[in-house]
Amino acid sequence: MIKTVTSPAFIIDINRCLSNINFMRKKALKKGLFLRPHFKTHQSVCIGNFFRKYGINAITVSSVSMAEYFKRKGWDDITIAFPVNVRETDKINLLSKNSEINLLIENLEAVRHLKKKLKNKVGIFIKIDTGYHRTGVNYGNIELIKKIIKEIKNSNLYFKGFLTHSGHTYYAKSKKEIININDDTNRKLNLLKKLFFKDYPNIILSTGDTPSCATAENFEGIDEIRPGNFVFYDVKMLSLGICKEKNIAVCLACPVAAKHKSRNEIIIYGGSIHLSKDYITNSSGTNSYGLIVKLYNKGWSKSYRNCFVKSLSQEHGILKVSKKLFNELNIGDLIGILPVHSCLTANAMKGYYTFEGSFIDHM
Amino acid sequence: MIKTVTSPAFIIDINRCLSNINFMRKKALKKGLFLRPHFKTHQSVCIGNFFRKYGINAITVSSVSMAEYFKRKGWDDITIAFPVNVRETDKINLLSKNSEINLLIENLEAVRHLKKKLKNKVGIFIKIDTGYHRTGVNYGNIELIKKIIKEIKNSNLYFKGFLTHSGHTYYAKSKKEIININDDTNRKLNLLKKLFFKDYPNIILSTGDTPSCATAENFEGIDEIRPGNFVFYDVKMLSLGICKEKNIAVCLACPVAAKHKSRNEIIIYGGSIHLSKDYITNSSGTNSYGLIVKLYNKGWSKSYRNCFVKSLSQEHGILKVSKKLFNELNIGDLIGILPVHSCLTANAMKGYYTFEGSFIDHM
Repeated sequence: MIKTVTSPAFIIDINRCLSNINFMRKKALKKGLFLRPHFKTHQSVCIGNFFRKYGINAITVSSVSMAEYFKRKGWDDITIAFPVNVRETDKINLLSKNSEINLLIENLEAVRHLKKKLKNKVGIFIKIDTGYHRTGVNYGNIELIKKIIKEIKNSNLYFKGFLTHSGHTYYAKSKKEIININDDTNRKLNLLKKLFFKDYPNIILSTGDTPSCATAENFEGIDEIRPGNFVFYDVKMLSLGICKEKNIAVCLACPVAAKHKSRNEIIIYGGSIHLSKDYITNSSGTNSYGLIVKLYNKGWSKSYRNCFVKSLSQEHGILKVSKKLFNELNIGDLIGILPVHSCLTANAMKGYYTFEGSFIDHM
Repeated sequence: MIKTVTSPAFIIDINRCLSNINFMRKKALKKGLFLRPHFKTHQSVCIGNFFRKYGINAITVSSVSMAEYFKRKGWDDITIAFPVNVRETDKINLLSKNSEINLLIENLEAVRHLKKKLKNKVGIFIKIDTGYHRTGVNYGNIELIKKIIKEIKNSNLYFKGFLTHSGHTYYAKSKKEIININDDTNRKLNLLKKLFFKDYPNIILSTGDTPSCATAENFEGIDEIRPGNFVFYDVKMLSLGICKEKNIAVCLACPVAAKHKSRNEIIIYGGSIHLSKDYITNSSGTNSYGLIVKLYNKGWSKSYRNCFVKSLSQEHGILKVSKKLFNELNIGDLIGILPVHSCLTANAMKGYYTFEGSFIDHM
C-alpha cells in the first residue's frame, strides 16, 4: 500500500493495536476492573469492533456528538466524560432513549438544569478533582458533593459514583511519580467511597488516564478504568516510559519535498493540519513534534537516533536529521512520522490505512 | 443564530471579512501589485467568491488537493505554494489540463522528475529563501538558480520568476522589524531580477506574508503578493500590531461547561480539536491560546482585559478570567474566543456560520 501514497496518510499497524487492546483487557481482568475504554483516541467504528470482540460493551466518549456516532453503530452503554454541556440536553434526550448514558456533573447549576429537561433516566458520575485542577469538585469538598447527590434525588438522574481524570500524570517526570499520583488519586477516591458507601453500596469509582492504567499495579477500591490513548500510544507516552516504541501503532506517511544540506534538514509534506502542534521537549531542551521512521511494506523501522521533527507549519514539516539519513533520503521518497499525540493526529487525519490498503473509518 | 448554538461553532463576521479583502485589494492597486491571495486560510468557495467580485481571478493554495477543490469550483489560475510534491504528478497533469498551474521548485531533482512526467505546460517559480530558512534556494546561490533555469528549458515547464515567503515576520518583535524584513526580502529578490531580467523580461517577483503585505509601504520591484491570513486576521496578527482587534473576522462560539471560583477559571466546551494548539506568549510570560469576547446576535464585544484562554486539551478550554467576567458567566452560556491562528482554526472547524445562520463552506 505504501507505494501508492501520494500525500500524508495515516497508517495503522493493526497487530500492534490489537496487542495494545489485549494488554489492557488482560490487565483489567487481572485487577478485577471494569474496562470502559475511551474512544476519543481512535473515534473509529472498526477499531471499536476490535474491543467488542474482546467482550467490551461499554465505552467512554468526550462529546455528545461522539456518543451519537457510536450509538448509531450499536453502542448503547456510553459515558460522556466531559462536564455536561447543558446546551445539548435535547440531543441527550434522544441519546438516552433505550441507551445507558452516563453524564458528568460538577456543579448544582447543571443538575438543576438536567432535572428540569431530561426525559429519560441517565446515570450521573460526580467529577472529582484529585489534583489535575482542570475540572471537577475538589475531593475534599464533601459539602458540595452531598448537595449534588441530594439534588439528584427524585429525578431522572441516578447517582452512580465518582469519576476522575488524573491528567497530571502526563506531566510526570518519572514512572515513580505516575505511580505516586495514581496512589494519591485512589486514596482520595476511596475516602469518598467510604463516606457514601452506606447509602450507595453500588457506588463506582472510575479513573482514567493511560499513564496510570498502563503502569500502576495498585487499583484498590477502584471499580472502572477508562484509558484511551493506549490503543495507539505515541511519542508522548514513549517519553513518559509508559510504552515501548514497538507499541506505537500509528504512523504518518509523508512525502519528502525538499532537502537542505547546510542545515541537515528535510522538508516533508506533512504539517500541523496533519500531526497537530503537540510536542515534547527533548533532553537537550529542543522541541520535538515527532520521531522519524523508515516505512516498509508491512511495517516501519525503529526511530532514527538523533533525528526528529523540528517544527511544523500548516502543511510543512521540518525534520532535523543525521547526515546518514540526509543522504539516504531523496526527493519524492516517503518517510514515516510517529506522532507526539496520537489522539490529535487521528482527529486531524479522519481515517487510517492498513498495510494492505484498507481504509479504516474515523468519525 | 447565536441562541441556537449547542456546541463549538465558528462564526464569521462577513462585513469585517469583506473590509479586510477590500483593504488588501486597494493596497495592491495603489502599489501596482498583482494580488494572488492565498486561499489556505479560508479554504472556502463562498469566501473565494467575495474575491471574485473584486475582480480577482488568480489564487494561491498550499496543496494539490486544495488546487483540485478550487479548480472544481471554476478557479483556473492557481499557484501551488509548496515545494512541488513529485508523488502527485498524475494529479498535477489533470489539474494543468486547461488551467494555468504554477509550481514551486527549489532543487534539480524535482525539475528532472517533472520534465519526464508532466504532460501539460506549467509555470515554474523558483522558491527563494530570503531569510526564513524553511524552504527555498538561498538567494545568493546563483549557481543553483542558473542550473534550475537551464534544466527547465525545452520542456513543459516555463520559468515565471522568483517567489518567497518571509515567514520570519511572524516572529518579529515590532512593526519596524517587519518593515526591515520586507525591505531586506525585496532587496534580495531585486538582485535576482536584475541578474535574470535580460533573458526573462517578464520575470515575476512574488512575496507573500500577511505581516509585510499589511504593513509595509515599499514594494519596489515586486510584481505580485500572496497574503492569506489578512482575510480573517487573528490574535497572532493582533499581537504583532498588524491588525486592530476590530479587523478580526472570525470567532469560536463555545458553551460554558464549568466554573472554578478558587482559580478564577471557566471551562468551556472548545479545545485543541477546534482552536488548534497555536499560542502567543503574553507580556507576563504566560501562554495565551485565544482572547475572550462577549457574543451578541450580530457581532461580538471587544476582548475582556486580563482574560485569556490559558490552556487547551482535546475538547476542553480553560479560561483565565477576571472576577467580573467570572461572575457574569453562567453554566450553559455561550462565550466567544478569538483564535490565535485563524488558518488552523478554520481548517479544524470545516465551515463558518454567519450571524444570520447561513453556513459557509470550507474544503
